[in-house]
Amino acid sequence: MITIGIDLGGMSAKAACLAAGALTEKARVVTSKEKTPEETAKDLAALAREAAARGGIAFDEIDAVGVGSPGVIDGGVVVQWSNFGWKDVKLAALLSEILKKPTFVLNDANAAALGEAKYGAGVKYDDCALVTIGTGVGSGIVLGGKLFTGYRGAGTELGHTVIRAGGLPCPCGRRGCFEQYASATALIRRTRESMEQDRASRLWEIAKTTNDVDGTTAFRAASMGDAAARETLDGYLEDLAEGIADLVNLMRPQAVILGGGISAEGEALLDPLRKKVNEKLYIPAERVPFQIVAATLGNDAGIYGAAHYASECVK
Amino acid sequence: MITIGIDLGGMSAKAACLAAGALTEKARVVTSKEKTPEETAKDLAALAREAAARGGIAFDEIDAVGVGSPGVIDGGVVVQWSNFGWKDVKLAALLSEILKKPTFVLNDANAAALGEAKYGAGVKYDDCALVTIGTGVGSGIVLGGKLFTGYRGAGTELGHTVIRAGGLPCPCGRRGCFEQYASATALIRRTRESMEQDRASRLWEIAKTTNDVDGTTAFRAASMGDAAARETLDGYLEDLAEGIADLVNLMRPQAVILGGGISAEGEALLDPLRKKVNEKLYIPAERVPFQIVAATLGNDAGIYGAAHYASECVK
Repeated sequence: MITIGIDLGGMSAKAACLAAGALTEKARVVTSKEKTPEETAKDLAALAREAAARGGIAFDEIDAVGVGSPGVIDGGVVVQWSNFGWKDVKLAALLSEILKKPTFVLNDANAAALGEAKYGAGVKYDDCALVTIGTGVGSGIVLGGKLFTGYRGAGTELGHTVIRAGGLPCPCGRRGCFEQYASATALIRRTRESMEQDRASRLWEIAKTTNDVDGTTAFRAASMGDAAARETLDGYLEDLAEGIADLVNLMRPQAVILGGGISAEGEALLDPLRKKVNEKLYIPAERVPFQIVAATLGNDAGIYGAAHYASECVK
Repeated sequence: MITIGIDLGGMSAKAACLAAGALTEKARVVTSKEKTPEETAKDLAALAREAAARGGIAFDEIDAVGVGSPGVIDGGVVVQWSNFGWKDVKLAALLSEILKKPTFVLNDANAAALGEAKYGAGVKYDDCALVTIGTGVGSGIVLGGKLFTGYRGAGTELGHTVIRAGGLPCPCGRRGCFEQYASATALIRRTRESMEQDRASRLWEIAKTTNDVDGTTAFRAASMGDAAARETLDGYLEDLAEGIADLVNLMRPQAVILGGGISAEGEALLDPLRKKVNEKLYIPAERVPFQIVAATLGNDAGIYGAAHYASECVK
């Protein structure tokens, strides 16, 4: 079985072949919301052909194509992708018509979760969840080795469960969503607030202005022993732990995989986070094993997952 | 297939046969934490035989026995039932040794969910969740027609996901658990607080003292137009909606079934609750259908579910 995985994003789409459990050389194309869905489908079809060529694989040998797309996906249809203004775009049908190959579409966060579960940090676990810390908080869940999406793909929005009802407003319309406290955006906001409150903090050595703050600033200052940075991180990790513990108390996967740039912090992130989450578990890890690990596939997780999904769907 | 379902509780155990999709006449026995697990198993075995006799079914005709038990259950073992001080009690083995029948044990909230899903309010849905409002908030989830329990039975504790991190202390050790805001206990607490704040409220006509308050008090006063009662209910339902919306945003079942005494309030409960939950959904019910319905099996749900579980396990 050889499939192509496409990771469709708002700026670009990337693709590669998945053959014998490994990705071939990637191909890339710029994407734009100015293009129609039909034009984008054409670009993605050309991208798939280029991925096969770069992988040294005749396109005839490709068994299926998988696309990880932003938005709500249901049965090959992009029901809604707000950034691109897409509504009920039959992306699988558009692509398969051009490529003459079975084509399957899944949500991009779900594709990344499936990729990590099958080829990355989750290979040891039948049940695991990927929680991706970025601009928002994305999540994807694999149960019994299969992607779990909820009814008609409308589930696994961990970022939009509340940890502080009535708290910070969220673009989704609720107040107090996990995403507002645990995203990289939230860590940056917290770091800036700490800097403004403590002009003597060594945070100011890492970031010259509050505009220079990124998701690593607090970690770097904390490793230098800065009290304000440590307090910032502690509050952030406490909230991150609340949402992860909620996911675990409700669904009890064997492992949660942390993705996004923050996962590069390694044990400085994972060690305190594990302790905080375990304190909040209804059944702690000493009684029923539970792991928190860092994602290992980086930006390739979505390509792996999309290609794997296509292979599962076609077999 | 004829199975026996046993609903084990801290005060009593009830049992009946499930034959041709219906329960036969129930049998009942008193339970006590003063008894050893072995003594309790003997009582449950006698109860099972009595249930067969009351059902007019020869015990030889019974294919399997299912027990819904409080606590954390893993593979026929009651890993922990705090009220009875049970730890690692091999209940399935104890019972099957006496009865010489295949015996299976599942958590009582899960049994009730499976019962409602298969014989009650959830028969139309492949994916549904039972949320039981009582002293605490219990939950059980059925996915693809099968009970979902999380890894080693350690999941589906919706009552112990937070909606207000750092809020009210919960016996589980966390602060701000959903259960502290949405249980019947919480509604009673809120009703009493409203009475104390408003001596003129008609709540005082329903309950002569705050000790007379129960889960129906606020509903009855609200139906008389009392403003304090309406405000109490509104706040309570808002919090109940937060936890239900969290479950739905994460797992997106097709329906949530509300159980517990409160479900008898019917549309006075369901209509405002549906509106509040829908406002909090990441994908609203207009886009992907979602229902909130009242449980229909009452106290029999656990017997149905335990008997059904046994039939699934043995077939």
